Amino acid sequence: SILLVRKEKQVLIPCGIPYIFGTGGSPEKKLIPDAVREKNNIELLLGEATRIDRDAKTLTVGTEDIAYDRLILATGSTPVMPPIQGIDMAGVFPVLKDVAHLKQLQKQLETAADVVVIGGGFIGIEFADEIKKSGVENVTVVEIAPHCLSLAYDEEFCVEMQEYLVSRGVNVLTSARVESIRGAGKAEAVLLSGGQELKADVVILGTGAIPSGALAEEAGLDLAEDGSIAVDRTMRTSDESIFACGDCAQKVSFFGGKPSHLKLASIATQEARIAGANVFGINRENVGTIGVWSTAVGDYAIATAGLTEEMAKTQGYVTVSAAVEGLNRHPGGMAGAVKSRMKLLFEKSTQVLLGGQVMGDAAVGEVVNMFSACIQKKMTADDLAIFQTGTHPALTASPIAYPLVNAAEMALGKMKTAAE
Amino acid sequence: SILLVRKEKQVLIPCGIPYIFGTGGSPEKKLIPDAVREKNNIELLLGEATRIDRDAKTLTVGTEDIAYDRLILATGSTPVMPPIQGIDMAGVFPVLKDVAHLKQLQKQLETAADVVVIGGGFIGIEFADEIKKSGVENVTVVEIAPHCLSLAYDEEFCVEMQEYLVSRGVNVLTSARVESIRGAGKAEAVLLSGGQELKADVVILGTGAIPSGALAEEAGLDLAEDGSIAVDRTMRTSDESIFACGDCAQKVSFFGGKPSHLKLASIATQEARIAGANVFGINRENVGTIGVWSTAVGDYAIATAGLTEEMAKTQGYVTVSAAVEGLNRHPGGMAGAVKSRMKLLFEKSTQVLLGGQVMGDAAVGEVVNMFSACIQKKMTADDLAIFQTGTHPALTASPIAYPLVNAAEMALGKMKTAAE
Repeated sequence: SILLVRKEKQVLIPCGIPYIFGTGGSPEKKLIPDAVREKNNIELLLGEATRIDRDAKTLTVGTEDIAYDRLILATGSTPVMPPIQGIDMAGVFPVLKDVAHLKQLQKQLETAADVVVIGGGFIGIEFADEIKKSGVENVTVVEIAPHCLSLAYDEEFCVEMQEYLVSRGVNVLTSARVESIRGAGKAEAVLLSGGQELKADVVILGTGAIPSGALAEEAGLDLAEDGSIAVDRTMRTSDESIFACGDCAQKVSFFGGKPSHLKLASIATQEARIAGANVFGINRENVGTIGVWSTAVGDYAIATAGLTEEMAKTQGYVTVSAAVEGLNRHPGGMAGAVKSRMKLLFEKSTQVLLGGQVMGDAAVGEVVNMFSACIQKKMTADDLAIFQTGTHPALTASPIAYPLVNAAEMALGKMKTAAE
Repeated sequence: SILLVRKEKQVLIPCGIPYIFGTGGSPEKKLIPDAVREKNNIELLLGEATRIDRDAKTLTVGTEDIAYDRLILATGSTPVMPPIQGIDMAGVFPVLKDVAHLKQLQKQLETAADVVVIGGGFIGIEFADEIKKSGVENVTVVEIAPHCLSLAYDEEFCVEMQEYLVSRGVNVLTSARVESIRGAGKAEAVLLSGGQELKADVVILGTGAIPSGALAEEAGLDLAEDGSIAVDRTMRTSDESIFACGDCAQKVSFFGGKPSHLKLASIATQEARIAGANVFGINRENVGTIGVWSTAVGDYAIATAGLTEEMAKTQGYVTVSAAVEGLNRHPGGMAGAVKSRMKLLFEKSTQVLLGGQVMGDAAVGEVVNMFSACIQKKMTADDLAIFQTGTHPALTASPIAYPLVNAAEMALGKMKTAAE
């Protein structure tokens, strides 16, 4: 007997939220369907879980105490509200997975002329591009780091994607810190620390999320340093009967087991499959978060798996990287041919693949899933240099210039030169 | 000092050949560029190698005897000429990688009303679709097996791709054997063994290829049963100084080491990277041919890696398969959303992935490269059920319905049920 307790009547497909605004469609068209749940006879209780009694093994929802043998916490995360003066003002929108909230944002955007997006991570740039696409005159992304997307990509990729975003009419201000949001009753302008003032009818916050660990904390479960619910490799919390998965759960990196703060739907669903299996007896372990994800601006896509050069350096790895550029079709005259760029990163001493970044057409969303397999199985540059690919003129790069293979050969050349 | 001996002045990108005819462009636009060779100071000698003197370690090209320390044979393959009466008639075209030959075919197609393609493998269907696309009125594929593409896909995939080909105006006759080609001086009709006669101004042969082993055989090198040049895992022939790679070289399957007769450009280039490295000292081994490839008809693509259910059965594997269908975007309203279909095959006793087939948009060309990594590293259904993917609304299926993962879970369910 499986019961799902859910606060929201309707649940949005989280990654689809930015696409409500430009690509079109109301929030109601981006809902997670209930079909799978219904088909599998999983009961649904609408309401908020307010308390866990670990001794009695009950969960309180409204006035009801519900008995459990095993409990899975999937309480998610809430948007970070940075300490900016005026952030609670009307017209300032964190990205909530809430239909009413998003409809209100959608309504305000209909008449907005100036929109400021705080944060140039993937949520920020997706929102900015979609809102520009919807016809808003001035859309500006304000990013505190020197480049957008810099938590996930090395500089050359960030620069290229940022330039592309600008070419589509979005303003991008980097190394820029928001000082305050000003307005009389509602947001009218965003003031940057350098003194620059940006007009803003609507302000959107793309500044990250923090784990929702309150329910677990109140029940006395261990939390990790970032406030996430502490779990072991089996997704079990400090209580043997309670598991946690998704944004609320502690994550460790595939690379050395250090804390990871990545929050992605694909990580959440993977952890859910581990937790969901283990409630029936421990048989799955989490190898740690590799970090595989992608985003798109217009027809141009960018994707990454594993460590960037910057991340690897921070973690003390000595690495060799290799970057290749080329077309995603062969010969180059084939339909759909666009330039693509790929970079692979290897640990120098072991030749093991640590990460890959790629830009190009929509297929890069699957190319990183190939990277994910190669990283997880610790394939080396030599393994990849003789990797068996399928190639086709209308679908991929040429077999004599398949970027994964060529980058691996190039990295081997560098390692050899370095060793001599 | 590296010398490349080549018979042809210009070399076509082989996989691009069908696309000369419909997608457009002359054969000259589909040439392999000489840039890489020139950049790496590799000398080119135009001419035909006619003799290897293994004792003197020389290769005869024209009147010249050229000394070698190491020799790599990459003599390719030639089209199979099936024993059909009239096959040598004018108007009958095997697929040769030869500019003049292809220009002649292109010229004849300009005025052709009826074209028959013998063989419904990937070359056959690509040619048929392209020729139909170029405006030829009647294009008919004649396939001896019950379905097109049946050497690479299980029946359900073959049927769907064949139906799609028909919907694009190509006639397909299956379980049909060509008896003879008739005509006065040039091809006019193809006669099937059932008595049916097909008008044909042009006949194209897509009936496979045989390894070009003559030069090696005359030098006393061992050949494999299929006439390919026998090589070990390092791509070395029976002479320690001579290597072979590509269509001319013996292939063994990744699955159990049995003979493989696959001939693909991507296999040839992978073998070339093994042979090319090993001439400087043995350091790379061929794990055997996995068989990864893809093709496209219009915007619809089909791709495969490893064994099909049929192949696995023939080789004595006991398997469990799982098939899923779904959209390649999430939510389904996103641009570019098309139905995709995936099937995974696992060995029942070990849960190891043996093969994957997939249909959908262009990205399936990269999805099979992910399969290739998973197969090569012998990932199990349980590994894949918790596989770490990157997903994005505009690029991939949903993280709660990623087909690789869902098919793996489904297969695990079947294995569990079977074990009870």
